[in-house]
Amino acid sequence: MNITAAYTDLYQITMAQVYFETKPNGRAVFDYYFRHNPFKSGYSIFAGLEDVLTSLETLKFSSSDMTYLKAKGFESDFLDYLENFSFKGSIYSCQEGDVVFPNRPILQVEANIIEAQIIETFLLNILNFQTLIATKASRIKYSAKDGVLLDMGLRRAHATGGYYASRAAAIGGFDSTSNVKAAEDYAIPSTGTMAHSFIQSYEDELQAFRDFAKVRPDNCVLLIDTYNTLKSGLPHAITVAKEMEERGERLLGVRLDSGDLAYLAKKTRQILDDSNLGYVKIVVSNQLDEYVIKSLKEQGAPIDIFGVGTNLVTGKPDAALAGVYKLAAFNDTPRIKLSENIIKTSLPFKKQVYRMIDDNGMFYGADAIAIHSETKVSKMEHPFDITKSLELNRFKHEPLLNQVMKDGKRTIPVRTVAEIAEYSQLRLKQLPNEYKRFQNPHIYKIGLSSQLKKERDALINLHKF
Amino acid sequence: MNITAAYTDLYQITMAQVYFETKPNGRAVFDYYFRHNPFKSGYSIFAGLEDVLTSLETLKFSSSDMTYLKAKGFESDFLDYLENFSFKGSIYSCQEGDVVFPNRPILQVEANIIEAQIIETFLLNILNFQTLIATKASRIKYSAKDGVLLDMGLRRAHATGGYYASRAAAIGGFDSTSNVKAAEDYAIPSTGTMAHSFIQSYEDELQAFRDFAKVRPDNCVLLIDTYNTLKSGLPHAITVAKEMEERGERLLGVRLDSGDLAYLAKKTRQILDDSNLGYVKIVVSNQLDEYVIKSLKEQGAPIDIFGVGTNLVTGKPDAALAGVYKLAAFNDTPRIKLSENIIKTSLPFKKQVYRMIDDNGMFYGADAIAIHSETKVSKMEHPFDITKSLELNRFKHEPLLNQVMKDGKRTIPVRTVAEIAEYSQLRLKQLPNEYKRFQNPHIYKIGLSSQLKKERDALINLHKF
Repeated sequence: MNITAAYTDLYQITMAQVYFETKPNGRAVFDYYFRHNPFKSGYSIFAGLEDVLTSLETLKFSSSDMTYLKAKGFESDFLDYLENFSFKGSIYSCQEGDVVFPNRPILQVEANIIEAQIIETFLLNILNFQTLIATKASRIKYSAKDGVLLDMGLRRAHATGGYYASRAAAIGGFDSTSNVKAAEDYAIPSTGTMAHSFIQSYEDELQAFRDFAKVRPDNCVLLIDTYNTLKSGLPHAITVAKEMEERGERLLGVRLDSGDLAYLAKKTRQILDDSNLGYVKIVVSNQLDEYVIKSLKEQGAPIDIFGVGTNLVTGKPDAALAGVYKLAAFNDTPRIKLSENIIKTSLPFKKQVYRMIDDNGMFYGADAIAIHSETKVSKMEHPFDITKSLELNRFKHEPLLNQVMKDGKRTIPVRTVAEIAEYSQLRLKQLPNEYKRFQNPHIYKIGLSSQLKKERDALINLHKF
Repeated sequence: MNITAAYTDLYQITMAQVYFETKPNGRAVFDYYFRHNPFKSGYSIFAGLEDVLTSLETLKFSSSDMTYLKAKGFESDFLDYLENFSFKGSIYSCQEGDVVFPNRPILQVEANIIEAQIIETFLLNILNFQTLIATKASRIKYSAKDGVLLDMGLRRAHATGGYYASRAAAIGGFDSTSNVKAAEDYAIPSTGTMAHSFIQSYEDELQAFRDFAKVRPDNCVLLIDTYNTLKSGLPHAITVAKEMEERGERLLGVRLDSGDLAYLAKKTRQILDDSNLGYVKIVVSNQLDEYVIKSLKEQGAPIDIFGVGTNLVTGKPDAALAGVYKLAAFNDTPRIKLSENIIKTSLPFKKQVYRMIDDNGMFYGADAIAIHSETKVSKMEHPFDITKSLELNRFKHEPLLNQVMKDGKRTIPVRTVAEIAEYSQLRLKQLPNEYKRFQNPHIYKIGLSSQLKKERDALINLHKF
């Protein structure tokens, strides 16, 4: 499947037809944000922006899309419009890889409302998923500390979504991927070991190891649990490691893929060390996630490399980030969506978000949301609790939403996955550790400028019943 | 991203190189199966086969794949092999849409081992995901009974995996999708309503409804919860419905997307009926899954159409089906993989699976696995419990694995999603209801022919420590 403008929900096109016939020149501002961090995390890692910008620059309805939409019964004037459709709007966004938080805009689209609606589904689809996976990857990196992380989830990923999962995992801190296509297109280091089937295809395990090491001596990792880890796989691997030494080569590692990984890693380390193979690394895999890795670390398991699959690429257990795209202004008039749950009430106006930076260059733990036209925000107020506010004059104010697209063309240089991943690590260093812990992480504050709060409350009063 | 042969794990190519240099003509049989039904379901719906066959017929490494692999340092002889790579093997499979169960082969690949390895990741990626989603969809259909089901999950799907999710949802029993691209390519009915942003773009809700109904009177569904469902949205929708009647048109429905759906649906139904709008349907959405729908049904909520999104397309809470691909034979010799957990021991030999059909044409609840060459299976034995066996002579034996590809070309006609969905419903009718309930469903039996069990146990003894 190629991504075309038909990668959308039908209602976007239906609504677009109504706009086309009733107010074709309406200008809209939409906010992209989410209401909760995934995984009960104290932060999220924003990912997917480069893919969005790249696709938006060339997004069209294909000729087969047009044939389909014609058959759906859309009017010919409107079909002509769709045939010539392109996105010609502006986008303001946080940097990809930044540490972001709930309930403040991460990205704003300012465009003709028809264009803004047609791209909504694609934009949500890419940003929601990659932000989910980059966040999961970041948490796994946090628990693995200096352990090397390998993404190997493609076989359990959601079909071709696995391609984007591998990209987002690299942004979140994974060192390499097994996914050849993603590695190729996104310049992510690719690595891999061997499968049980390789060993099974031989009459005996030792010969399988020997053949593999002879043909692929570089970065050779032997999988040692096909028959019995300690009684068969490890002794055979040691034999091969010694044979490699005679050829002037070095076995990179052995991989454990079943059983009690903490126990087996310790035993394996000890036996390798006793065999003067202290340089042979231990790779583990098998249903790892941030909690299993944290437990392995706490047990002192001497593991060098963690291979993570299903739990990473599917973003288990959440499986989705529920990011939304809400109308904030139409033809320069602020717009609001109410809800029975006041927390879900949307924020009107084109906005800016300021991050408060303390004297040490660290995040203070507060983002202030203001109307875009405000020049000075000296205080932020809690969105709903009138007893709470924060003076902001003592902080450096970093504006987070910067223009990345204008008139449908990107205005920032292309950034590689490696550059985005590096930026993400720098930003994470600015985030105090209490936001990173897994148990009840500290809650990062959100506040509204006094003007935004006043104007929002007036709109609530206008629409409430 | 286009699907090419590089949509694989790097280790498949690494292993392929070793095979290429040491035993390039090895013939392998691999089994595809999974060990547990997802969602604690009593059955699964097999999906994804058509996509696999279609891709396999033309799967190649692209020129950019070859450039990448050359840069990875693979040898030139082997690169020549990859440049000319195509899948030339055979596939034996259950029919797509069939009701399937754990721990018996659903599909077998018989091919040169290099080809069989290179396609492994792609095959698992497509079958695991679509089987997961088709099973979820089937469960949702079971709880919705005669309610109409609309897939609207694309914005929360795993990037382009959403395309395959919509296909699998249709196979599992969904009536339509919001996903235009999937609808177009797979001939799935597409439907949609309107978004809150549409209403917010107007000064008042009534005018928004009026414009929409005028431009799109066919299949018009008005979203009534933007400001207040019962005090604003519903009265406005009734006004527009009456105006439509004057034009000889009919409002199709109103949609509830927040609040207590059971309460609001009952109230809405009553008010619509009191307004002589008994024909206006009630559509609900908002974090639905099989359990929420079951509860709404039990409460007697008068809902006609259920829109299901995130929980469907992400296969929550499981998020993955852990299907595996295990070597069963190599060069006509049976192969086994042991495990510390005996249940995970693989089954050797090229095999056939027979489903037992009773006198009424219903599934008896037992699939028997035999070595492919066995002609008569009169008894099946429990895989591990020597006290249990079942006489099979009284049943009709339906062979489930039939050839679908030979020499890399499909041997069965193309089947549309609609045909597969229809077949799936017929097969579900043959499955007794006790396998369909959500709480502790009846466990469908698996058994081995006496010969397969004897041969497997001999192989276990050969490799055990």
